[in-house]
Amino acid sequence: MDYHFETEVRVRFAETDAQGVAHHAVYLVWFELARIDYLARFRGGYPELRAEGTEALTTEVHVRYLAPARFDDRLTVRCTCGELRGARFRFDYAIERDGQKLADGWSLHAFVDARTHRPTRVPAWLVDEIATAERPSGP
Amino acid sequence: MDYHFETEVRVRFAETDAQGVAHHAVYLVWFELARIDYLARFRGGYPELRAEGTEALTTEVHVRYLAPARFDDRLTVRCTCGELRGARFRFDYAIERDGQKLADGWSLHAFVDARTHRPTRVPAWLVDEIATAERPSGP
Amino acid sequence: MDYHFETEVRVRFAETDAQGVAHHAVYLVWFELARIDYLARFRGGYPELRAEGTEALTTEVHVRYLAPARFDDRLTVRCTCGELRGARFRFDYAIERDGQKLADGWSLHAFVDARTHRPTRVPAWLVDEIATAERPSGP
Amino acid sequence: MDYHFETEVRVRFAETDAQGVAHHAVYLVWFELARIDYLARFRGGYPELRAEGTEALTTEVHVRYLAPARFDDRLTVRCTCGELRGARFRFDYAIERDGQKLADGWSLHAFVDARTHRPTRVPAWLVDEIATAERPSGP
Repeated sequence: MDYHFETEVRVRFAETDAQGVAHHAVYLVWFELARIDYLARFRGGYPELRAEGTEALTTEVHVRYLAPARFDDRLTVRCTCGELRGARFRFDYAIERDGQKLADGWSLHAFVDARTHRPTRVPAWLVDEIATAERPSGP
Repeated sequence: MDYHFETEVRVRFAETDAQGVAHHAVYLVWFELARIDYLARFRGGYPELRAEGTEALTTEVHVRYLAPARFDDRLTVRCTCGELRGARFRFDYAIERDGQKLADGWSLHAFVDARTHRPTRVPAWLVDEIATAERPSGP
Repeated sequence: MDYHFETEVRVRFAETDAQGVAHHAVYLVWFELARIDYLARFRGGYPELRAEGTEALTTEVHVRYLAPARFDDRLTVRCTCGELRGARFRFDYAIERDGQKLADGWSLHAFVDARTHRPTRVPAWLVDEIATAERPSGP
Repeated sequence: MDYHFETEVRVRFAETDAQGVAHHAVYLVWFELARIDYLARFRGGYPELRAEGTEALTTEVHVRYLAPARFDDRLTVRCTCGELRGARFRFDYAIERDGQKLADGWSLHAFVDARTHRPTRVPAWLVDEIATAERPSGP
């Protein structure tokens, strides 16, 4: 998997559990942080999309946990966005600490009208921005 | 303090932290559960108040932690509501396990219009219901 | 899918997000509540397993979100446990509200020694208990 | 109040609630982030204190909510540490957005031995570090 974006997150004490490691539900929050940072590079990002009256729903998630993350760990959350089709898109993620992969996963999302919650197409400007950001950069 | 209401909560694994006890921020969530259960006895409770276009904001909280709560502990959250004046009201709480007090605290709240977020009076029917529920039950 | 166990959960206000629905990460906490309630029927349940020096790690999760859950919704979390092999086991889940399925998913887990975090077999008594609980109940 | 330290935090989507603002329990997590960042300047910070076999328990908290924080807001959490006496210390906090104060509060803490959970003195090196950091800088 070729991840074109990364963001940093530090494990909070409140995110640990009595096993002494980050609770497994928190990884979905870290994936979400990465999506929001990914989108923040384009116009007003996710807040702008919400201001325009659209919401991105999460319709499916998958996580594999390979090694635990601990309090105060500095983590890198890598992600890439693809499969934009109509109202749908997909993110793939890897969470790493010092180059070691601790988890990976993916999520599916649907764009909906914020009032009706009916599917609506991903805005053309966003499709273009993502296509440019994800374009292979090579020769 | 004379608590007129109680509700039960069980400590979730996700609520523990790496100290092996329930994280201190979670107590505010348990206080909130008690408020919602307290109000649920009157008409449609808090969901009804929200449906009527009002919100109860939390404006101040205080918690004293006396002894830790642990995973799977069955806790009793006692509370009492008072000081209803205009748009404001106060709850007092105690959290107990098998009769031992683990924490106590209080919170202040303001009723606001859900759209404008401007203060609005606590609905008369709710003032009456709470006054009845909190009335000393006699000699 | 034939679920042999169910437990109830009510959507907390703190579990909602600015979309006005339960945040998608919370479903993993609800799955965990169901696992713990499932195991609580056997000896001392998950707390007993921890007291015996074992931990159940979550190694993989999958969730499909079909319809949103809202504040104060009463949800039924159904689950079934299977594929116990050596140190590993799997749970399947469905979350319903008034008979409508809101989400489904599954999780994989590994039993480990609490100190070494090395894989250890699921205790025989638990394998037996689960086998009995999951046994088809007849013609 | 003269705050000698500040750290930044961005409101996560998962931290918002159905009122469209950051849930009030999250402020305790932000206070904790500020404490940990405050201590991180001294030796190994809070992880070092834990490695040395001590824990800092939270024994009391107080928060006043003045104005709501919203998704993606960049917040400044200011804090100052004082009243170090024996096993106890206190932090005061203010949370600001663009110079506007959204909340303030304080917390009390006790140092305990991680195994026995009995009070233990704040390590002398930490008392010295904090005294230096909090010293008035000037004529």
